[in-house]
Amino acid sequence: MRRPRRSGAETREAILATAERLFRARGFAAVSIADIAAELDMSPANVFKHFKSKLTLGRAIAYRHGRRLAERCSIEDSSGTPDQKLKLFLSRLAREHVCDKLENQYLFEMIPLVLEDPAKGGRIYRRLVEDKLCALIAEAMEDGIYRPGDPARDAGVIVDMLASVLHPKMLHCVDPEALSDKTALIIDLIDSGLKYRVAK
Amino acid sequence: MRRPRRSGAETREAILATAERLFRARGFAAVSIADIAAELDMSPANVFKHFKSKLTLGRAIAYRHGRRLAERCSIEDSSGTPDQKLKLFLSRLAREHVCDKLENQYLFEMIPLVLEDPAKGGRIYRRLVEDKLCALIAEAMEDGIYRPGDPARDAGVIVDMLASVLHPKMLHCVDPEALSDKTALIIDLIDSGLKYRVAK
Repeated sequence: MRRPRRSGAETREAILATAERLFRARGFAAVSIADIAAELDMSPANVFKHFKSKLTLGRAIAYRHGRRLAERCSIEDSSGTPDQKLKLFLSRLAREHVCDKLENQYLFEMIPLVLEDPAKGGRIYRRLVEDKLCALIAEAMEDGIYRPGDPARDAGVIVDMLASVLHPKMLHCVDPEALSDKTALIIDLIDSGLKYRVAK
Repeated sequence: MRRPRRSGAETREAILATAERLFRARGFAAVSIADIAAELDMSPANVFKHFKSKLTLGRAIAYRHGRRLAERCSIEDSSGTPDQKLKLFLSRLAREHVCDKLENQYLFEMIPLVLEDPAKGGRIYRRLVEDKLCALIAEAMEDGIYRPGDPARDAGVIVDMLASVLHPKMLHCVDPEALSDKTALIIDLIDSGLKYRVAK
């Protein structure tokens, strides 16, 4: 009996899910399109119809991972004040980074390999984080919770200050056990700084 | 006529100075003990009497460079309050890092190559910086300039917050032009945080 036919979109989704599972388990380099096809009981040619190369497939997984990360760091569920939201956002962001580093080591290492231009990918990611921070800082300044200042500039400074716990290059040196305490201390000092700051 | 004989200490110093000049100009890998000996008009065997290998010589230069860095970052000349001294110390530290990166690229790259254990070297360096910060923070807390807290813990957090401008891994991504402004902004926010901090 023939298998029920999957739609194109379903096949694409099945390839992505299987490839991601295999990449996470064995690493990007160790898994071939043939492995992924075999796992799905389809021909490699059929996989290539949806993704023209393993690189393209890896890239689609990297982008999807980025979107999911953004969802997991979302603070839409919070009804706190803007400064509370800012702290929540930063602590979620740091937590997700550690999880990626600990649980998804292979995926974490794959991402810079598959992006067209890892530095550009890094800048886009940084921009997303800065935009979010900038909006929250502006809100906190309007509400008089933070001292007046330049929200966009502050957002950039904050991302710099979190390099030791957010930047992929730094995560290699960090003890994951200590990371969440460390992050909490940094976030507290940033929050205090924004509340106190001497007007210039 | 024979050259006047140098003492052992003078010869050692002459070797260090010449080796450092050549390493800075051409890089550690490109300079041999024979090159250094030729420059000093002595035999390689004579150089080896003072330094048993190029690695030992490189290491001696790295340690000397560290001691000089500490002198250049010294704030003994400042008569400011402890918080002013802390800001001065951090800005000098960051400035010296940028200078090393820009002007002494070869030396900067040599240091991790020659240390027995670069991670340990990094930890020793970090410890020196933290000890200095800790003493200044304790002083500022005693004087009531900073809110009470744990100076040693704060010193650690501050070093983490400056990773984007101090850590060798991060200096590769940074635009040197922007670095001193960036550093000043980070230092200001840290200073404000220490002054304001909500007691826990």
